[in-house]
Amino acid sequence: MANFGFPDLRLVEAYRVAADEARSGPHAEIVLRDSRDFSTLAEATADATLVIGTTSARKRDVQLEIKRLEDAAITVKQHSGRIALLFGSEKFGLSNDDMCHCHWLVRIPTVEGATSMNLGQAVAVTLYEMVRQAPKIETVESEEQLAPAGMLDEFTDRLYEALQLSGYVHAQNINEKLRRLARRMHLREIDAVMWLGIVRQILWKLKKEN
Amino acid sequence: MANFGFPDLRLVEAYRVAADEARSGPHAEIVLRDSRDFSTLAEATADATLVIGTTSARKRDVQLEIKRLEDAAITVKQHSGRIALLFGSEKFGLSNDDMCHCHWLVRIPTVEGATSMNLGQAVAVTLYEMVRQAPKIETVESEEQLAPAGMLDEFTDRLYEALQLSGYVHAQNINEKLRRLARRMHLREIDAVMWLGIVRQILWKLKKEN
Repeated sequence: MANFGFPDLRLVEAYRVAADEARSGPHAEIVLRDSRDFSTLAEATADATLVIGTTSARKRDVQLEIKRLEDAAITVKQHSGRIALLFGSEKFGLSNDDMCHCHWLVRIPTVEGATSMNLGQAVAVTLYEMVRQAPKIETVESEEQLAPAGMLDEFTDRLYEALQLSGYVHAQNINEKLRRLARRMHLREIDAVMWLGIVRQILWKLKKEN
Repeated sequence: MANFGFPDLRLVEAYRVAADEARSGPHAEIVLRDSRDFSTLAEATADATLVIGTTSARKRDVQLEIKRLEDAAITVKQHSGRIALLFGSEKFGLSNDDMCHCHWLVRIPTVEGATSMNLGQAVAVTLYEMVRQAPKIETVESEEQLAPAGMLDEFTDRLYEALQLSGYVHAQNINEKLRRLARRMHLREIDAVMWLGIVRQILWKLKKEN
């Protein structure tokens, strides 16, 4: 992170011990020292307008697009908001629940049969690609005002509540599905505000009637 | 090396102990097992037609060209002979004597003030760049799977109805606004079906209560 100029390390839950035990070069000390702990992934990513998960898999059960790192970097460079890049534990990677917080996934183009990478090396390669010099591409305007993840979570939480009050029980893992659904909307902040207003109004009515 | 498909590890002099103590993932075992020892750098690189040294420095006393990694990869990909990529020890890097064996040097584009990298990470980043593919031009999600307008209309009509029942009267032209909102979602058909189910369920509940 220090080598490629990424200072903002956020740790979720169990990783504090590992971080305290981590030894680092002189440049990296400041990154570790300034790292912050969060108890949930939702809190850690609340201010991000784009949340990207990492995976070693080429295919995954989750209904999320998996981009090659090279392609992912283009999208990342076009994005002007804050981006969260999630790495799971070296052994297990990100859980399906973690992935529900992601807009899409990125994979490093490793060779078939040797897809599992050392965590530190995976981070280094990923961040290198993000700062790698590439041909200039015009920024896409619509990306600029995307809704932060905290707002998407608020929206899906309220929607979930409304569905429960409405007796919507068809689907399994409905909470997960709603999160993914919301992320596939590519909501701009201004639209997210409207959606929140809509769902809150409906929720208010549903609660009043019950 | 295993992750990016480079099987030929050659160790010069003192590095044998480190290699024997190295623990590796299952993919990398074979690279370590098949690694070969050489007593001099000259012997280790004897069959290479291009010898590239690595350095963290931007400038160096040796009279050798230093290429950025991104530029180096272009030359490497154009070269049809065997290439040797030299990494020094993590602490000291390559010696001036080592560098005399090199045609040129490559440096990873780290940020000023944090140029020194972990050896494993430096190797990973360098080899990644060597196999990296130029990104494809971002394809727009295939239009085929997008929801037809009729479905979007059905969705917004039902949503409008639900909002009316909920007493949502803040906005003017709410019907129009909902239509635009729905279209900005870029809904795939499969997601539109789910959204329709959600709003119908809520509507059913709202009607039942009224």
